[in-house]
Amino acid sequence: MTTRLSGRVSAAPAELLHDEILRPQFEYEVAHLLTWYLAIEKVLLVEYVRLGLVGPGDARAVRAALDGVTAADLTARPDVNMSDFAFALERHVEERLPAPVPAWHVDRSRNDLQSCAQLMFGRDQLTHVAGDLLALGRAAHLLAGQTADLPMPGFTHLQAAQVVTPGFYLAAVVEQVLHTSGRLLATHDGIDRCPLGAGAMSGQELAWDRDRMAALLGFPSPQPHALVAVASREWALEITAELSVLGVGISRFVTDLMAWGSSQYGFIELPDSHAGISAAMPQKKNFPLLERIRGRSAHLSTFHVDAVLGQRGTPFANMVEVSKEASAHLLTAFATARSTLRLFTEVLAHVRFRPDRMRAACAAEHLGGFTLANRLTLLEGLPWRRAQVVAGRYVVATQGRPPADTDPDVLAEVARDAGFRLSAPAEVLAGAFDVDAGLREKRSPGSANPDSVRALLATQAIQLDAAGAAWTSRRARVDDALASLDELLT
Amino acid sequence: MTTRLSGRVSAAPAELLHDEILRPQFEYEVAHLLTWYLAIEKVLLVEYVRLGLVGPGDARAVRAALDGVTAADLTARPDVNMSDFAFALERHVEERLPAPVPAWHVDRSRNDLQSCAQLMFGRDQLTHVAGDLLALGRAAHLLAGQTADLPMPGFTHLQAAQVVTPGFYLAAVVEQVLHTSGRLLATHDGIDRCPLGAGAMSGQELAWDRDRMAALLGFPSPQPHALVAVASREWALEITAELSVLGVGISRFVTDLMAWGSSQYGFIELPDSHAGISAAMPQKKNFPLLERIRGRSAHLSTFHVDAVLGQRGTPFANMVEVSKEASAHLLTAFATARSTLRLFTEVLAHVRFRPDRMRAACAAEHLGGFTLANRLTLLEGLPWRRAQVVAGRYVVATQGRPPADTDPDVLAEVARDAGFRLSAPAEVLAGAFDVDAGLREKRSPGSANPDSVRALLATQAIQLDAAGAAWTSRRARVDDALASLDELLT
Amino acid sequence: MTTRLSGRVSAAPAELLHDEILRPQFEYEVAHLLTWYLAIEKVLLVEYVRLGLVGPGDARAVRAALDGVTAADLTARPDVNMSDFAFALERHVEERLPAPVPAWHVDRSRNDLQSCAQLMFGRDQLTHVAGDLLALGRAAHLLAGQTADLPMPGFTHLQAAQVVTPGFYLAAVVEQVLHTSGRLLATHDGIDRCPLGAGAMSGQELAWDRDRMAALLGFPSPQPHALVAVASREWALEITAELSVLGVGISRFVTDLMAWGSSQYGFIELPDSHAGISAAMPQKKNFPLLERIRGRSAHLSTFHVDAVLGQRGTPFANMVEVSKEASAHLLTAFATARSTLRLFTEVLAHVRFRPDRMRAACAAEHLGGFTLANRLTLLEGLPWRRAQVVAGRYVVATQGRPPADTDPDVLAEVARDAGFRLSAPAEVLAGAFDVDAGLREKRSPGSANPDSVRALLATQAIQLDAAGAAWTSRRARVDDALASLDELLT
Amino acid sequence: MTTRLSGRVSAAPAELLHDEILRPQFEYEVAHLLTWYLAIEKVLLVEYVRLGLVGPGDARAVRAALDGVTAADLTARPDVNMSDFAFALERHVEERLPAPVPAWHVDRSRNDLQSCAQLMFGRDQLTHVAGDLLALGRAAHLLAGQTADLPMPGFTHLQAAQVVTPGFYLAAVVEQVLHTSGRLLATHDGIDRCPLGAGAMSGQELAWDRDRMAALLGFPSPQPHALVAVASREWALEITAELSVLGVGISRFVTDLMAWGSSQYGFIELPDSHAGISAAMPQKKNFPLLERIRGRSAHLSTFHVDAVLGQRGTPFANMVEVSKEASAHLLTAFATARSTLRLFTEVLAHVRFRPDRMRAACAAEHLGGFTLANRLTLLEGLPWRRAQVVAGRYVVATQGRPPADTDPDVLAEVARDAGFRLSAPAEVLAGAFDVDAGLREKRSPGSANPDSVRALLATQAIQLDAAGAAWTSRRARVDDALASLDELLT
Repeated sequence: MTTRLSGRVSAAPAELLHDEILRPQFEYEVAHLLTWYLAIEKVLLVEYVRLGLVGPGDARAVRAALDGVTAADLTARPDVNMSDFAFALERHVEERLPAPVPAWHVDRSRNDLQSCAQLMFGRDQLTHVAGDLLALGRAAHLLAGQTADLPMPGFTHLQAAQVVTPGFYLAAVVEQVLHTSGRLLATHDGIDRCPLGAGAMSGQELAWDRDRMAALLGFPSPQPHALVAVASREWALEITAELSVLGVGISRFVTDLMAWGSSQYGFIELPDSHAGISAAMPQKKNFPLLERIRGRSAHLSTFHVDAVLGQRGTPFANMVEVSKEASAHLLTAFATARSTLRLFTEVLAHVRFRPDRMRAACAAEHLGGFTLANRLTLLEGLPWRRAQVVAGRYVVATQGRPPADTDPDVLAEVARDAGFRLSAPAEVLAGAFDVDAGLREKRSPGSANPDSVRALLATQAIQLDAAGAAWTSRRARVDDALASLDELLT
Repeated sequence: MTTRLSGRVSAAPAELLHDEILRPQFEYEVAHLLTWYLAIEKVLLVEYVRLGLVGPGDARAVRAALDGVTAADLTARPDVNMSDFAFALERHVEERLPAPVPAWHVDRSRNDLQSCAQLMFGRDQLTHVAGDLLALGRAAHLLAGQTADLPMPGFTHLQAAQVVTPGFYLAAVVEQVLHTSGRLLATHDGIDRCPLGAGAMSGQELAWDRDRMAALLGFPSPQPHALVAVASREWALEITAELSVLGVGISRFVTDLMAWGSSQYGFIELPDSHAGISAAMPQKKNFPLLERIRGRSAHLSTFHVDAVLGQRGTPFANMVEVSKEASAHLLTAFATARSTLRLFTEVLAHVRFRPDRMRAACAAEHLGGFTLANRLTLLEGLPWRRAQVVAGRYVVATQGRPPADTDPDVLAEVARDAGFRLSAPAEVLAGAFDVDAGLREKRSPGSANPDSVRALLATQAIQLDAAGAAWTSRRARVDDALASLDELLT
Repeated sequence: MTTRLSGRVSAAPAELLHDEILRPQFEYEVAHLLTWYLAIEKVLLVEYVRLGLVGPGDARAVRAALDGVTAADLTARPDVNMSDFAFALERHVEERLPAPVPAWHVDRSRNDLQSCAQLMFGRDQLTHVAGDLLALGRAAHLLAGQTADLPMPGFTHLQAAQVVTPGFYLAAVVEQVLHTSGRLLATHDGIDRCPLGAGAMSGQELAWDRDRMAALLGFPSPQPHALVAVASREWALEITAELSVLGVGISRFVTDLMAWGSSQYGFIELPDSHAGISAAMPQKKNFPLLERIRGRSAHLSTFHVDAVLGQRGTPFANMVEVSKEASAHLLTAFATARSTLRLFTEVLAHVRFRPDRMRAACAAEHLGGFTLANRLTLLEGLPWRRAQVVAGRYVVATQGRPPADTDPDVLAEVARDAGFRLSAPAEVLAGAFDVDAGLREKRSPGSANPDSVRALLATQAIQLDAAGAAWTSRRARVDDALASLDELLT
Repeated sequence: MTTRLSGRVSAAPAELLHDEILRPQFEYEVAHLLTWYLAIEKVLLVEYVRLGLVGPGDARAVRAALDGVTAADLTARPDVNMSDFAFALERHVEERLPAPVPAWHVDRSRNDLQSCAQLMFGRDQLTHVAGDLLALGRAAHLLAGQTADLPMPGFTHLQAAQVVTPGFYLAAVVEQVLHTSGRLLATHDGIDRCPLGAGAMSGQELAWDRDRMAALLGFPSPQPHALVAVASREWALEITAELSVLGVGISRFVTDLMAWGSSQYGFIELPDSHAGISAAMPQKKNFPLLERIRGRSAHLSTFHVDAVLGQRGTPFANMVEVSKEASAHLLTAFATARSTLRLFTEVLAHVRFRPDRMRAACAAEHLGGFTLANRLTLLEGLPWRRAQVVAGRYVVATQGRPPADTDPDVLAEVARDAGFRLSAPAEVLAGAFDVDAGLREKRSPGSANPDSVRALLATQAIQLDAAGAAWTSRRARVDDALASLDELLT
């Protein structure tokens, strides 16, 4: 009966509330927060013992009851537990105690409890996202190493611009992964403060050791402000913001893959196991997997907007609106991020580039126009802007023939028309429109030159390892803390 | 084996694709689109008979196989049906035919099939949302009639401004409902065009009767452009846009209810069955239900953003990205809208206003300041802007005493200071700050005067009925069409 | 001095408020709302005369003062008019009156005044957007008629699928325009209710004729609820929602144009006057105009989100937060919509299709696969799904040679392997992969067949005219009302 | 003439393009990027000298021309500079050179130039936002110190919950500021990599010293990947994401201020210079400033959405769509953030708390219910959940009388009804409902106890200083670099 839980409210929740709100919330918490609630309960127990409020025997009894809890034990029952997870757990334990333990849960609130369990969940999910992210980075890195010598057209404004390679492009994917990992790590460390011990909103009355509680849950420190501890869910905003930014990045890369896989480009192939068919057009082989990744990445920005819409304009206070409803889709946000990353990784593990098609596309365009203009200036002394004009006119004048089939006479002529007499037009043109030469002509650090790419990949390999180690250490702190907690209570 | 489905692709979908993409999609379609797919299949069958491509006996066999399908019959199997719903259904039927029916499904595509089934789903969901919306309108209308005489402060800029009533306020909720219903109906009618018969993208080769096919599925007409039929999912954008706008409206109303239910206002109560408790602060009675409604309404705007993010920048073509991934959360959008509406309705069905608290709040403020200024102009001839200043000074000068306890001497004095000699200050003040008089002082159509409110409610009652009838007729057309379809095939 | 405006507040606005809030707001209102404020003031004057509160001579004096107002007369001055537009206008008039007119502005509020002026602004802007939209529709319609016979590949999932034409595609653009125009018109008519006469929030005390006031401002009726009149800015949500949906539609069309204009497709050209160059790669001709249109369309969805974020969670009351700050970017939203539409129209007016490139792309792909499968079923009796497999295998087996160069022996062979003996494989293949025949093979209403397209264009021409007439009548009502208003006051 | 700029395109931009796109872009760049473009040009010049491509005399001439440039010199002229800023600047310099300097701008691209200038702009704006943010933090810190002893009700779920103080609350604002500053700093440092030297997309052909170029522009390092350098504008996503999160935080704080300033709370006052009046309701004093801050903060999330919508689904390439159109509202985003922060700071500098109203609100509620339940457990041994029920019943039973007027008999009775015999009910109740005692009863670190608050404020003071120093060092690096650059060229 409700009267066992409250002296203030005497009726159980109405059916509609139970069905639409309380039961779904209850089931969500059982499925996703139980682990963290139990850890917190153990920390509280450790503290009650330290404070001399619960004796060792009672503590053992509570601990045994906690250890025995499984998801199946906990049911949303409006009449018995007001369909509230914390009441259900409390009651489950009480029913298994040989005798009442009066001080158990004294000076406690659900507010910091829920805030702490939710944060531990979010922190845990974040490390899983990071794991999937680094797996993507490693897949991109591997493929980059294998494809750093294959010429393909690079585009600006969707027009073929210069010779690059898949390896060059994929190294940019690795850069994205490393950058995102760094931001996620900073986000992780910024939110890694334990809300426990903040009470309902203004703090607690007993001499809880908040530093120790934090440490036992794997937090470097407590959240320093009680109100922030229970009122804020900024971590949900921050994480979704990071995922939003990541989603945009992924969408751009996959946009390129989609173009490369389209019938007009034909630069990549996916195996049949990763392709789709038409039910009606038997000639077709589609790549719906790529569409799914791009489409799925869209939701990542959505969920940030959802967190914003749910939180903004609310009081900075403990509110169900913020603590629960605004986070209703947070689990989906994490799952979507992980799925998007895994599917992208799968693509990189199976995609095959088509060197012939890519090389042909390079050869069909005057990708060496930039080189030609450079040489007109450096070898023949044309002012740069005029050199651009002459090079452009040469391109127009030779349109229709293969660019590599250069014509020094035409170059000399368009230069002359522009007021310049070239001393060695053939030398200026030599190799300017050769595909492989074009790739190696670039020499700045970070360029598409295979040597530059390989140098960058070497650095990235080290950075990927470092990023992996950083995340591993974060997970280890939590694992170690929870393990030590179990030892403390034996 | 895949080779039974395609001559182009020879491997079954990879496991990760199956798990992350195909199976969830398959299960979604079985759960939510099966009804509509079956109706469409029957329409196709009717047409094949009409075209002379399928004989009556064969048609009966196909129909029997279709009629026997249940959700349990359809399973995502990568090897057998490529985990595709349409293939699974086709195969399920084929296996139950006594002999092959060669022309069954000739000249057909999944593209218009899926587009049609999805649209029928969306159209159906929309009518359910409309039903919940009108239920909210009726609850607001009922409560408005009961509370149109209870004075409460109306606020502008969060400051008490003028005397109004809950009934006046709730009539605004009814206005919102009616306006939204009208927009949803226009949206419904605007999207109510049958995609079937558009083929894969460019139309069909047989002499399908698109008008008849549309009619048999309860559409007033076919979609006039084949590409639009398969490429567009604008209806998902439009519906979510409407729900977004509705969500904002609801959030504003509930913001007021939350304020009214806060301890500093104390204007409303919810019964214990609709309230919440604190686990730690025994004095508290909370209204988390209101927070849930406001928080839930936030998601409604989210889902429009999701549809936008998913669709924009995609080719205007049949794309999995648009037809499936971008709509991944559409069902949740509908469910959230319905839940938000039902919970709001529940509140209106159970909320209790506290007349004493509301009246006391009215009496504590100089809500008749506007009336006083009006009278200074109309009775004493003060120019309006000066009358405002004099009235304002009177309010300041009498701060601290009950406004109804008026003081003509003070009024005369502040007027004199402003350069005006009043002839009858007592008459000017008479009843100006009386709560009930304040309510009845307003007399324009649409005002808070109980008579105005009742007149408006009478009009709204008729409009609610008309709106209900409009939606009923939409549902009836579909029901009738599907019923006639079954008759055609017997 | 402030004391001339209020008896309640005695200091002028602080400098920071003036600079960051009041002055920008003031200047915005002068630039964009002055016309509407003046019209409203005249309606009020007409009513004061009718109510017998202002005599004809005084009315003439007020009217003369109003008629003389120019934007330059109105300045945000914290000390004199609290940097408020309405106070500034009131004061400007008062200073030009030969004698005070005491009852002028009695029983008036800024709340319904501002609401009305803002709505008139929004309504007016909406008609301008509609005008630009229909211009786009007409440009698309014209070009569609010119290009309905040019074969080009149609794509699904970015893979060449079937033969279509630019005309077919552009008719879909016209459909979008017509559909959007219909929705905008419904939106226009749904918001077309005059807020004037609602007072500060609860109605007015004098016997204002709200019907007449509405009519004089070109509204079909007054807003029936006083609170809605001053609290709601739902029209800003609705209009931005419509623009959001439109923006997505445009983004999809332009995505296709961008692909068509890319170097790998080469289907379209824009003249040099509408193209861009590279400063460094002299061979390049870019189409940044297309990028601008797609990018600009993105903002349209943004502004709906902005309106949502600004309005949700606010009290349903007259609030500066809603009436002004939430609409801060509304003008930009309108301007962006108009710019996006005009630029898209400009593209359609100047784009040139490249028939050779489009036809070559058609000829390179087995776009007749669907036709082939159909014929295998219809002519040779293969069950449809098996026909698909056979057709697919034929495509695979003949890969590498031009599709039009068909090979009946291969078809017979792959059919035999699948268990079918064809009686006339040459007949089955005849013309199946011919580009022009492929286009004409489709015959359903709405198909890409030039005859179908022309039939649809004929219907659309009528619909465009009807849409134009509908918008013209809306504008005319406002123009006529304002003209009659001026006559009333002479 | 265009032919002076390109050999590829021979017509000047069309008028509509110029008016809608090019001129606004040009004017934006002149107003906001000129400083950065000039710094970059000087770095290029330094490098040309180092590379031996431009002699010292020529370098002096170019430098003199650059130094002389003012905004007024640069005009968008379609015929002369294609309305492009870079062309206009180049031409401006060329016209001022005594003789052509052929190699000037050889091997250069606009792509990394624009990317670099834009990033320098964003980086600079970010430091300004940080400055305004820290000013807010300091204002909150100051006020917190002044108000840490004033009891006010703290709320959960909008119901009065426990005694807190403005100082406690404001310390949470400071926490927000510090946390946000940390995130902005991490963002700043993460994006602080120089794009210059990446060329058009694939790198450069000359031996540019990218490390030195970065250092001369105040970057710690170059962007390591050429494609990332020109294709990515992730920094715009990241910064707007941070502002979005900050905006939500501000909106929540201001929501509380708005409630506190509402007539039903009456906890705070703003001076007349920061308040608003009603034009019609003379009794009113409004706080539109608070509404403006909350409303303005909404736009901050909008601009992240805008960046997302503008960037997602675009190729990862140099695109006008991303580099320019997607950032169209970035300046407004920065300006809005700064304005929001400054206005909030202004409020904190002028707000006055009303101790009487706040204390009365505390005294009217049973805020000591938590304390009472604690004591029932700790002093009388009631199991905690039962203690909660007894405390709740006591609250219900004494409703209507001032909570501080405690009644031990009632407590004993409700306890007895629940099965407990209290030994010292008066002791249990002593001070439990005393307002000041309630504040000091909390003792955990981070609690509302004034001592806890003061301890936290002391820490925060150090942290604010450290944050200020961190930002100062960032600005100094840029200032020093630009100064050294000027020295290098003398």
